[in-house]
Amino acid sequence: MGRRERTGLPEIVLAEGKSLQDLERLLRRLDTLPEAILISRLSGAQKDLFRVLRKEGLVIREIPGADLAVLHPGAGDRPLLGATAALVTAGTADARVAAEVEGVLREWGARVVRADDVGVAGLHRLLQVLPALKAADPGVYLVCAGREGALAPVLAGLVDRPVLGIPTSQGYGRGGRGEAALLTMLQSCAPLAVVNIDGGIPAAVVAAQILRGGLRRPAHPSTPSGSRASRTRFA
Amino acid sequence: MGRRERTGLPEIVLAEGKSLQDLERLLRRLDTLPEAILISRLSGAQKDLFRVLRKEGLVIREIPGADLAVLHPGAGDRPLLGATAALVTAGTADARVAAEVEGVLREWGARVVRADDVGVAGLHRLLQVLPALKAADPGVYLVCAGREGALAPVLAGLVDRPVLGIPTSQGYGRGGRGEAALLTMLQSCAPLAVVNIDGGIPAAVVAAQILRGGLRRPAHPSTPSGSRASRTRFA
Amino acid sequence: MGRRERTGLPEIVLAEGKSLQDLERLLRRLDTLPEAILISRLSGAQKDLFRVLRKEGLVIREIPGADLAVLHPGAGDRPLLGATAALVTAGTADARVAAEVEGVLREWGARVVRADDVGVAGLHRLLQVLPALKAADPGVYLVCAGREGALAPVLAGLVDRPVLGIPTSQGYGRGGRGEAALLTMLQSCAPLAVVNIDGGIPAAVVAAQILRGGLRRPAHPSTPSGSRASRTRFA
Amino acid sequence: MGRRERTGLPEIVLAEGKSLQDLERLLRRLDTLPEAILISRLSGAQKDLFRVLRKEGLVIREIPGADLAVLHPGAGDRPLLGATAALVTAGTADARVAAEVEGVLREWGARVVRADDVGVAGLHRLLQVLPALKAADPGVYLVCAGREGALAPVLAGLVDRPVLGIPTSQGYGRGGRGEAALLTMLQSCAPLAVVNIDGGIPAAVVAAQILRGGLRRPAHPSTPSGSRASRTRFA
Amino acid sequence: MGRRERTGLPEIVLAEGKSLQDLERLLRRLDTLPEAILISRLSGAQKDLFRVLRKEGLVIREIPGADLAVLHPGAGDRPLLGATAALVTAGTADARVAAEVEGVLREWGARVVRADDVGVAGLHRLLQVLPALKAADPGVYLVCAGREGALAPVLAGLVDRPVLGIPTSQGYGRGGRGEAALLTMLQSCAPLAVVNIDGGIPAAVVAAQILRGGLRRPAHPSTPSGSRASRTRFA
Amino acid sequence: MGRRERTGLPEIVLAEGKSLQDLERLLRRLDTLPEAILISRLSGAQKDLFRVLRKEGLVIREIPGADLAVLHPGAGDRPLLGATAALVTAGTADARVAAEVEGVLREWGARVVRADDVGVAGLHRLLQVLPALKAADPGVYLVCAGREGALAPVLAGLVDRPVLGIPTSQGYGRGGRGEAALLTMLQSCAPLAVVNIDGGIPAAVVAAQILRGGLRRPAHPSTPSGSRASRTRFA
Amino acid sequence: MGRRERTGLPEIVLAEGKSLQDLERLLRRLDTLPEAILISRLSGAQKDLFRVLRKEGLVIREIPGADLAVLHPGAGDRPLLGATAALVTAGTADARVAAEVEGVLREWGARVVRADDVGVAGLHRLLQVLPALKAADPGVYLVCAGREGALAPVLAGLVDRPVLGIPTSQGYGRGGRGEAALLTMLQSCAPLAVVNIDGGIPAAVVAAQILRGGLRRPAHPSTPSGSRASRTRFA
Amino acid sequence: MGRRERTGLPEIVLAEGKSLQDLERLLRRLDTLPEAILISRLSGAQKDLFRVLRKEGLVIREIPGADLAVLHPGAGDRPLLGATAALVTAGTADARVAAEVEGVLREWGARVVRADDVGVAGLHRLLQVLPALKAADPGVYLVCAGREGALAPVLAGLVDRPVLGIPTSQGYGRGGRGEAALLTMLQSCAPLAVVNIDGGIPAAVVAAQILRGGLRRPAHPSTPSGSRASRTRFA
Repeated sequence: MGRRERTGLPEIVLAEGKSLQDLERLLRRLDTLPEAILISRLSGAQKDLFRVLRKEGLVIREIPGADLAVLHPGAGDRPLLGATAALVTAGTADARVAAEVEGVLREWGARVVRADDVGVAGLHRLLQVLPALKAADPGVYLVCAGREGALAPVLAGLVDRPVLGIPTSQGYGRGGRGEAALLTMLQSCAPLAVVNIDGGIPAAVVAAQILRGGLRRPAHPSTPSGSRASRTRFA
Repeated sequence: MGRRERTGLPEIVLAEGKSLQDLERLLRRLDTLPEAILISRLSGAQKDLFRVLRKEGLVIREIPGADLAVLHPGAGDRPLLGATAALVTAGTADARVAAEVEGVLREWGARVVRADDVGVAGLHRLLQVLPALKAADPGVYLVCAGREGALAPVLAGLVDRPVLGIPTSQGYGRGGRGEAALLTMLQSCAPLAVVNIDGGIPAAVVAAQILRGGLRRPAHPSTPSGSRASRTRFA
Repeated sequence: MGRRERTGLPEIVLAEGKSLQDLERLLRRLDTLPEAILISRLSGAQKDLFRVLRKEGLVIREIPGADLAVLHPGAGDRPLLGATAALVTAGTADARVAAEVEGVLREWGARVVRADDVGVAGLHRLLQVLPALKAADPGVYLVCAGREGALAPVLAGLVDRPVLGIPTSQGYGRGGRGEAALLTMLQSCAPLAVVNIDGGIPAAVVAAQILRGGLRRPAHPSTPSGSRASRTRFA
Repeated sequence: MGRRERTGLPEIVLAEGKSLQDLERLLRRLDTLPEAILISRLSGAQKDLFRVLRKEGLVIREIPGADLAVLHPGAGDRPLLGATAALVTAGTADARVAAEVEGVLREWGARVVRADDVGVAGLHRLLQVLPALKAADPGVYLVCAGREGALAPVLAGLVDRPVLGIPTSQGYGRGGRGEAALLTMLQSCAPLAVVNIDGGIPAAVVAAQILRGGLRRPAHPSTPSGSRASRTRFA
Repeated sequence: MGRRERTGLPEIVLAEGKSLQDLERLLRRLDTLPEAILISRLSGAQKDLFRVLRKEGLVIREIPGADLAVLHPGAGDRPLLGATAALVTAGTADARVAAEVEGVLREWGARVVRADDVGVAGLHRLLQVLPALKAADPGVYLVCAGREGALAPVLAGLVDRPVLGIPTSQGYGRGGRGEAALLTMLQSCAPLAVVNIDGGIPAAVVAAQILRGGLRRPAHPSTPSGSRASRTRFA
Repeated sequence: MGRRERTGLPEIVLAEGKSLQDLERLLRRLDTLPEAILISRLSGAQKDLFRVLRKEGLVIREIPGADLAVLHPGAGDRPLLGATAALVTAGTADARVAAEVEGVLREWGARVVRADDVGVAGLHRLLQVLPALKAADPGVYLVCAGREGALAPVLAGLVDRPVLGIPTSQGYGRGGRGEAALLTMLQSCAPLAVVNIDGGIPAAVVAAQILRGGLRRPAHPSTPSGSRASRTRFA
Repeated sequence: MGRRERTGLPEIVLAEGKSLQDLERLLRRLDTLPEAILISRLSGAQKDLFRVLRKEGLVIREIPGADLAVLHPGAGDRPLLGATAALVTAGTADARVAAEVEGVLREWGARVVRADDVGVAGLHRLLQVLPALKAADPGVYLVCAGREGALAPVLAGLVDRPVLGIPTSQGYGRGGRGEAALLTMLQSCAPLAVVNIDGGIPAAVVAAQILRGGLRRPAHPSTPSGSRASRTRFA
Repeated sequence: MGRRERTGLPEIVLAEGKSLQDLERLLRRLDTLPEAILISRLSGAQKDLFRVLRKEGLVIREIPGADLAVLHPGAGDRPLLGATAALVTAGTADARVAAEVEGVLREWGARVVRADDVGVAGLHRLLQVLPALKAADPGVYLVCAGREGALAPVLAGLVDRPVLGIPTSQGYGRGGRGEAALLTMLQSCAPLAVVNIDGGIPAAVVAAQILRGGLRRPAHPSTPSGSRASRTRFA
């Protein structure tokens, strides 16, 4: 049973840390599957390998600006999320992680509205762009921020949709490499959910699951006002 | 502009750490608002205060089994989520946090299906209850787990909806007080999103935002298969 | 040579951790000095001791709302800062530390303008109060914030005076007890300076030194535009 | 609204971590602004880029001994601080950070008096140089120190002006890379304010804000002795 | 008295961190011992040295796929464990450590049954392979897992033999480099024992000691049911 | 499927952190099982509860000197390990954890030989007692040690059986509460396996699994000397 | 072989953490030894126990101001160090640890010269007292300091005898409980040796060993100038 | 006032981290001093610089096997310690730090007796060499040990002279890079003093101060047995 059946989304292969031989063997095995498969965290040498493999007939498309590629894009049953995610970054140093998030979401059919460089050191920029972001009616907000990471709690206090914080490995000295940003998001007074530092892939997958839920789930008739909602206990 | 207008959900007041005088002053001020307001992390002394305040006419309902109460329940425009959340705990020590999550979600109109004591030390229990959880078609899974916290990554590999991990402050020695569980969830190979240790309230709020999105958002026509989804950049 | 001669400000005695006997002995010794002396972090038992000592003729005034007192207030040559500090708190839990800051600054003759409960979860409150704070023309801003501490970097991006961040020991789980707030302030993209968690006293002293400098120092004629300012090297 | 309007000081661009393309694009955009702009933490490759850009007409001056440069120096309305800062280092390893501090302050018109290599392992050197430093009547002291960082608390006990501690990333083994120095400064018995490890830029900006305040702010009539200073509460 | 006499198992020499000269000197000294000796954590340069030494008559066999070699293999009295160990890995990134474990155990005569890539993100794979592992009747299970390390506690809840957890230095951000996996195993609700991150060698040695015990120790007559077993106290 | 079927050993219930109501409910449920069940980490109040429950017919025996009890001792099919474990402590402060280990092992039919107070500060005591420990032919050594925990690596270099290190929460200042002892054991040059700080219960269970393996497993014919042992790969 | 024979100094028994029964049993056993024995870290209840034991004939003298006592003082062969130690504290909060150090050293016959409250926040106090300390010709300096602990590196730069730093568990927020003081001493530019936080007993013992060496060891004829001293290698 | 006058020992210059220009400038300045000066932590490039400087007349001798050199060796008044230090290492990886210790001590005229590779994994080696070490009558023991660092507490329990522990940056995974060894030494039950990880230089200097004290200090008449030693309080 593949990931698609279990989790409803296609496989994403982590290339980072894999040798060229391991990656080639894996791609040849995956090539037999009837599905578009994402490959993340590609190094330059791994992208060079693709050139060789393409000559041997593998269809691999690289996603520009991100270290992502798709094996036989368009194959199989695409997720077709057909919904919108808002992607917000605090500074230019967050771009690599944001590209990963955007690449995955758009590959799976989501619309992405994006605002860059809107960190809290210049709060007016966030306030300027916020109406346009809200107008796009996103099903989820994703915030990439390093250093002190304050963009995530600030945004979470301003919008009425789920916010996923993605701390990026920016910063220096004590609390650097994303540690401060992660703690800021975990301690946020305005509620939000968090992934690990530089966790663009898990954030994109959870966002896709949220967006998909927003499209297809029929409402069951709500509990009448004034009484508490029903409850079922299985274990 | 109150929290309701900004984030679409009613206020939750954190009682923990507030003196009785501060809490009383706050409740009297909130009593003038036309909205049901949750109060969380109540101590015994704070619950005793409620008895006094009720005599003076404040309508405060305690939620049994959780350290939660509602100020003038039923007032205003309830969220009426009208959707289902699955709430799963690894052990009995996770109950206090789970009660907080369930209390908030049911107060806001969600159905909660729940499976307790299904930690991975006895994996068969999780596997037994999983079909029933899935059959309830939950819009989100919330997993409360302490110690090694492995229930969250295991569950996230088995379901196709967003999973929110809530590490609980269980455990001993190195990695105790929820530290190991938090790291387990941040490092999970199966994607999930996380809140801080014992973060029942933020988890419930994010889950509510996910559930609400699942009910109301109309799908915009999906991008045709084979091309990448559109993108808008605002900043 | 007392602290006054060395640092230009009166002594502040830390009562925390001192036995009643040690504190009494110290107060009797300080009582012979011709100067008003602050005593900080007083416990209830220590305040009770004051009642006894007052009967024996010591003049000790407690500062309401803070765990501070002044030994023979009005004695000696008060600092008479005669300038304004802005004191801003994120939530009610920051009040104890803020009271310490305000008590010291006002005792030494500063005006204090204050805005409470303006944390970033409700950003509109900060934006509402900011014009009034700026209009008071404060020589320094002091920000008390726990949890994610994001108020400090947000404010530092909005004002043109020095900002001192005071992380407070608020928060839960990972990064709790002020750890996240401290890191947030150390990593802030908008420049600010920081004291340790709950460091109300050092913050107040540094603020007093800043305010005093703002009153009395004559400008030496600036270096002509276009050339770099002069430089002197002593060691 | 640029940083100048918000914070009263010109922009400082962090070059560290930016690609040559990103930096070039940014400089061309900033070149249109009517203001001298500092660029910090420049790599050798980035400085080489300047040679190319100068040929294309951009006016960029490098500040010798520091990894700093100024884009169109002399342009616009310089801060003209016209006041003195004292800059003190514990050892030669602190020179890189001190050069950054001095470069910024002198670029903005401050006088800098400096004493190097006066760490506490040879306390007599500090005591020798201290009278000259005091005689320069600095509005602020900046202390760069790594290893055990004890110079900062020692100096803070000897002077009557605000002290900003800048821990530098010196040291070995446990507490190395500036960790011990940071903690020493946060725990200092003599009050001082701190920036993050190697935080030369934020220290310089806060120092500039302190110096500017020392020049221009008129004293409001001090509260009469014996009564507490007035207080205003906005929120 | 060599390691063999003290601990019943041959020497394993750690090559990591040794200079080529130090390693050569050591090998020449060990060459005089009547025993097969393992050398672990070999670098490429150290393997090159072997080619030279072989020409000079030293018998050194490299173990393919692992950074291990044996000096005069077959010499002396091999351990001949003659029992089975089960070796399980969560992902391909754990292969280097697993090769080390397998190399040592097989060199000492153990059978190794192995299941790779059975991490909990795809729990079905573990459940599929488990019956075959159990059927091999292993005397000990060794689990190599990085990231969240959840495979170890899950497996420990499913088998009735001792489980040794070997956290591998996989993972990113907070809890990366094996930290989360180590904590997961230390906090496991299902009992297991742990070695340090990437501790393939100590795990293999402890496993060998367990396997050897399983072969040779005669049962002393058990204490009769209903009374507690006897006890001897020496110190 | 209970723990007995899965892991071959009876249930051990952790009483710590359970309310009296929760514990009573659990005991009544377990009372219906045909098996002796251990209850660990009992508080005084929980032991008082037993007195009440005994009057109501529950058969609960407390194990003297440890915070352990057995529900209907003698019931069911006892493990009857019938083998010997050596239990060694560094100091008197390790007694509480050692009692837990000994209680579990003896309850399950193992012989326990024990040497107390043989920490390395007085190495001669360990060397004196070691021959007697070895003569008892233990299948496993368990070492309880706090502070610097050096007893575990020292012992592991002296014996030829598996050693399980149990760091105890002893020590002061930096590395206190068992942290140093845990790291010492994880870094031990002489191979050993480790459980978490104060992990008496997991250590006892793993030791029981090792001892049981030592009694019952038949040797399969060893691979002939000179060739590597066979290998089977399932996944 | 007791501690006296091995290490040349009498036993010091750590009372902290021992139950009254354990302590009584231990004292009765030690009472048979022909030696004065120190007991450290006594609680109030343990001191009460002494009153009972004295009635039964045990000779126990408490050392005023410290949590120390001596069992049959004067018995056996006292160390009679007959040399001088200098003991220096930064603040009154360091008194408890200093009393422990002084109690042990004086009990063993050393002279102690002491300077209190000479922390670096008031450097002049240290400089005033230093000539008197030096004039006493101490064989070792012991420095008790918490908070930033800077007294130890400052003193180590001023004297020509070995300095032992004893960080005390003072301080607040980040680096509190002695952590910053320990790191300061470990990173000190002026060489010194360190014990753990609140390690008065180990510091006193090492100081006693230094003092004893200063009295009794005859100089062997020094290596002639210009050549390097001889060297012997045993292993 | 140079280091010699203050601390009685010649200067040791830390080369690590200094540029070639900085080092050259420093050496030329020191060349004017009438004293042999040690230079530590030399890189290969820095040693190459010496070749150039020697041609220009500077007398610099490198100490073989260590990254140390002496500027005009033999100049001035050598310390002529004329006493013996015992230097003990746990493994070959500790050699670099030990060479630093030995180089300094022998340069200053001390005899060094040395035992290598006597870590506790093979305790018999330490026990074999110990009588010879003791027979050399060392005034101090220095122990270099990484990994679990247990050699230091073991040795400290066996000798009657001061022991200085030098944790070395050996080890892997959790507690690696000397962290575990440092904690082991800080928590040692047998008293010892510690320097930071890889702190060969401070250890050598403190050892030299101990040795020098052992040669020259006359005993003042000891306090008569039975009364406590005298005490003087200066501050």
